[in-house]
Amino acid sequence: MRVLGIDPGIAIVGFGFIDKIGSRLVPVQYGMVETKAGTPQETRLLQVYESVGALMDKYKPDAVAVEKLFFNRNVTTAFTVSEARGVIILAAVQRGIAVAEYTPMQVKQAIVGYGKAEKRQVQEMVRMFLKLAAIPKPDDVADALAIAICHAHSAVLLQKTNGVTRP
Amino acid sequence: MRVLGIDPGIAIVGFGFIDKIGSRLVPVQYGMVETKAGTPQETRLLQVYESVGALMDKYKPDAVAVEKLFFNRNVTTAFTVSEARGVIILAAVQRGIAVAEYTPMQVKQAIVGYGKAEKRQVQEMVRMFLKLAAIPKPDDVADALAIAICHAHSAVLLQKTNGVTRP
Repeated sequence: MRVLGIDPGIAIVGFGFIDKIGSRLVPVQYGMVETKAGTPQETRLLQVYESVGALMDKYKPDAVAVEKLFFNRNVTTAFTVSEARGVIILAAVQRGIAVAEYTPMQVKQAIVGYGKAEKRQVQEMVRMFLKLAAIPKPDDVADALAIAICHAHSAVLLQKTNGVTRP
Repeated sequence: MRVLGIDPGIAIVGFGFIDKIGSRLVPVQYGMVETKAGTPQETRLLQVYESVGALMDKYKPDAVAVEKLFFNRNVTTAFTVSEARGVIILAAVQRGIAVAEYTPMQVKQAIVGYGKAEKRQVQEMVRMFLKLAAIPKPDDVADALAIAICHAHSAVLLQKTNGVTRP
């Protein structure tokens, strides 16, 4: 199973493709899509939509896991990021790719086993799970990989749960 | 000049096309795009994107004016609506249509001349400007027409401002 994890944004969209082969997690490609400050919001939305769509076409994920927004102190930013989430989810559904959403707390729980884990702990676990020499930079990329790992783990959990009698 | 006004939403998107001919405002088509409750958010986003895009292709507006969100008591709803705004703005920019955004207060100011006007006053002015027999229902449709009128007025204002020496 190939999972694309996305940390949505309008200036930077972090992305990470990982393969789940048996119980192993293998990084395929990760990085970020950037749009320039001062560019009109509608142009940036188009750029995010086209760039993320091109990545989906190239790496053909089976599922896309996107970070869900929680209430942010900066509401205007949160609205802008939500618009970017909208076009990213659209790009996935247009390609028939399953979409999953996780809150930051769910991601921390899945990666570290503790919903209030520090950012640094999550990043270190991402590095270890994927056997990387260093934590990917910037944070948006490490976050995107964390979301992808969270989905890979959750998907396994769902399979296991379906295999036993009790929920 | 043909303006498409949009009151964005995920369950109901209000839309209104109006033509500005000289100083007259003429309604062309108005109504709403609906998506069913219980449908996954990603499917609803696709439906909004495709339906609004089809309307743009049919009525070919020169500009799209979209209501800007203000801080809502229900943050989750605001995020969901922002995602819908994202795909609507994307549909416009993909067609090379200019996008303008107005806050509810700017719309009220443009229509009634008072930023804190009552909803009912705005709706009655919409009815009068467009010489309609009754206020369009539901509110989403009347709001979309109000945003379109706001843009038509603002565009005139910009032209006039550009024509004189002082800003």
